[in-house]
Amino acid sequence: MFNSEAVPHASSSDQVLRARAERVIPGGLWGHLNARLLPEGYPQFFERAESCRLIDADGRQFIDMMCSWGPIVLGHHHPAVDAAAAAQAARGDCMNGPAPVLVELAELVVATVPHADWCQFGKNGTDATTNCVTIARAGTGRRKVLVARGAYHGAVPWCSPSVAGVTAEDRAHLVFYSYNDIASLHAAAEMAGTDLAAVMASAFRHDMGKPQALPTPEFAQAIRALCDQTGAALILDDVRAGFRIDLGGSWEPLGVRPDLSAWSKAIANGHPLAAVTGRERFREAATRVFATGSFWCGAVPMAAAVATLRELHRLDGPALMRALGRRLRDGLEERAARHGLRIEQSGPPQMPTVLFADDPGWKRGYAFCAEALRHGAYLHPKHNMFLSCAHTEADIDHVLEAADAGFRHVAR
Amino acid sequence: MFNSEAVPHASSSDQVLRARAERVIPGGLWGHLNARLLPEGYPQFFERAESCRLIDADGRQFIDMMCSWGPIVLGHHHPAVDAAAAAQAARGDCMNGPAPVLVELAELVVATVPHADWCQFGKNGTDATTNCVTIARAGTGRRKVLVARGAYHGAVPWCSPSVAGVTAEDRAHLVFYSYNDIASLHAAAEMAGTDLAAVMASAFRHDMGKPQALPTPEFAQAIRALCDQTGAALILDDVRAGFRIDLGGSWEPLGVRPDLSAWSKAIANGHPLAAVTGRERFREAATRVFATGSFWCGAVPMAAAVATLRELHRLDGPALMRALGRRLRDGLEERAARHGLRIEQSGPPQMPTVLFADDPGWKRGYAFCAEALRHGAYLHPKHNMFLSCAHTEADIDHVLEAADAGFRHVAR
Repeated sequence: MFNSEAVPHASSSDQVLRARAERVIPGGLWGHLNARLLPEGYPQFFERAESCRLIDADGRQFIDMMCSWGPIVLGHHHPAVDAAAAAQAARGDCMNGPAPVLVELAELVVATVPHADWCQFGKNGTDATTNCVTIARAGTGRRKVLVARGAYHGAVPWCSPSVAGVTAEDRAHLVFYSYNDIASLHAAAEMAGTDLAAVMASAFRHDMGKPQALPTPEFAQAIRALCDQTGAALILDDVRAGFRIDLGGSWEPLGVRPDLSAWSKAIANGHPLAAVTGRERFREAATRVFATGSFWCGAVPMAAAVATLRELHRLDGPALMRALGRRLRDGLEERAARHGLRIEQSGPPQMPTVLFADDPGWKRGYAFCAEALRHGAYLHPKHNMFLSCAHTEADIDHVLEAADAGFRHVAR
Repeated sequence: MFNSEAVPHASSSDQVLRARAERVIPGGLWGHLNARLLPEGYPQFFERAESCRLIDADGRQFIDMMCSWGPIVLGHHHPAVDAAAAAQAARGDCMNGPAPVLVELAELVVATVPHADWCQFGKNGTDATTNCVTIARAGTGRRKVLVARGAYHGAVPWCSPSVAGVTAEDRAHLVFYSYNDIASLHAAAEMAGTDLAAVMASAFRHDMGKPQALPTPEFAQAIRALCDQTGAALILDDVRAGFRIDLGGSWEPLGVRPDLSAWSKAIANGHPLAAVTGRERFREAATRVFATGSFWCGAVPMAAAVATLRELHRLDGPALMRALGRRLRDGLEERAARHGLRIEQSGPPQMPTVLFADDPGWKRGYAFCAEALRHGAYLHPKHNMFLSCAHTEADIDHVLEAADAGFRHVAR
């Protein structure tokens, strides 16, 4: 089944495409999908995708544990999603206004997400996080936003992990706290004083290259209490985790509901869509903020989202992915131990991060992943991975076999 | 052919959808496609689109002169674009990296746009304008950006036409000039002093509700000279006009080439895509700026863009749309005069704005458009409209008949 043993060489299709790309795209590719950020041997270009499998430009096939960094939650070419998208495309996509499917989707999102009295749609996760901040400021008439140190909330100057081209003013009203640290939260709130517009929190701490951390119930409750006391908005950044932890929002299991949430990635199984959901209190502010884009009423991604959310409901997608993630986690733990290796697995099982103990510069992680890739599993050495509902137990077992080869390689 | 005479009433599909939308979406819809901004009678929801025709949720059919506010440049369901998109969708769209079509598209864009040594892709026009500013700041190490008073460059706090939720710091480094006013440009540059990072200019002045103005050659040359003297980047915002005026960029006919350009709308005939093109000088800065999104490597919009640009080349799309726009302009002029009405037509013929003389609050414009709509033409009373290559002379003549009814109505 797997012909992934072939090591890329200068005349491989991937290398030829990279050389061509290098000439016409700065650095060969922008952003998080640049394969230079991955161990050697990882492909940059992909020819095909099916279910949880990717085929690269050289015909190598992998079981994919990144799911396009989140969007693919039901697997590529899911029949119900593809059918819904094709049917809408045959009618119309980008028109002078939305198609009726907008209303269907908005009603479904509001019915699915307990805190949501309303929603709006966009294209990028960054559209959603930025819009949440702007709505919170418009609604409170205040400016300061508390964000966790090191958290990723998007790729524009106010929140980008790069400071290139960023001015001090872009971040003038951010105040930083440490995730899961209530004292730091309160200290940050004190700095913001009466100008506190919002507290932003990721669904869990998923900073790259570090162990992930689930929010403690006390921490989530402390943010809620702080916002209740001050009138600030609790903004949950559910862009990355949304619809994988709990369909109602990632903090539903904690019993803590945000005032505004940002969603994207998994919402339409790979079709470009983002959403903001909010409570009644911020509805009027949301009408005053002008956030829009040429493709934000595109009907095809909305039709795909309706099909995706229905299928996630039908399958209980979060439970399914959690069970698959546990199988992966248990299997990795067992195999690593067998090779005498210590690994640190963190985060919710359906979004696992696997790091090696005492591994500065992620050297072992890189060697492990490169070897697993040669055995047909596409893993990530330092970013959280993503399960999908398309993975089967047999797929996970295949990944575990590839990981076993990776552990053997590292142990040598 | 047209059954658009039926006036919407409370039990129309559109009104029922609006009432449902009102409950779950703030204000019924976000942004520029909210039908509340249009005369009464305009539909909010669309059921189908074909070529240059739209069918609303009540089955009324219109010849569309808005082209989804720009994206639809070849007409809905263009066979070559649809085939390219479907073929790519069958292989893969949102994967762990781009498909080979990215390289094909990037090479085509660089070959099409004379100033472009490289390009990057995103989803929103706002992604592209924001990224241009950030790259200019990263490349120059300076902060100030000159923008024309009243110009639209996107819908995030640094440039949004609404100030709700915007802080003073979001716009701290903008300095304003007046379009086509060289003295005001130089005064703004003086205020920016040695901190001048960029001068941003729209392809032409297309502020809503006002007559459009093409850039004078002297004005465009003055910006180029200013940037050459100071080392600032000339950023052309070609999001709205791109690929309708000149395939190489809207200032090519003026002989003035920008350092960075922002593109979106027409680039993929309605598929969500945006682009930044730039000169060699800013390539390194572009690698340092972190701009990315979950769907920015989506392959289907890129395949659609390749097909769209090839078709625009084959047809000489700008010339075709210009000729159709002239037919519309001449016909409107003649008919308005026949009814004793004075109208002001402005902008390039392929992106016309039609305003009535002495029409405070656009009252005549609203009445004119509402009546033309009842006769099957979807016009806009105060925003520029868009021709497409799918319009035929017969379509334009139909629009002129509908406009004639509109003029008759206003003249009464």
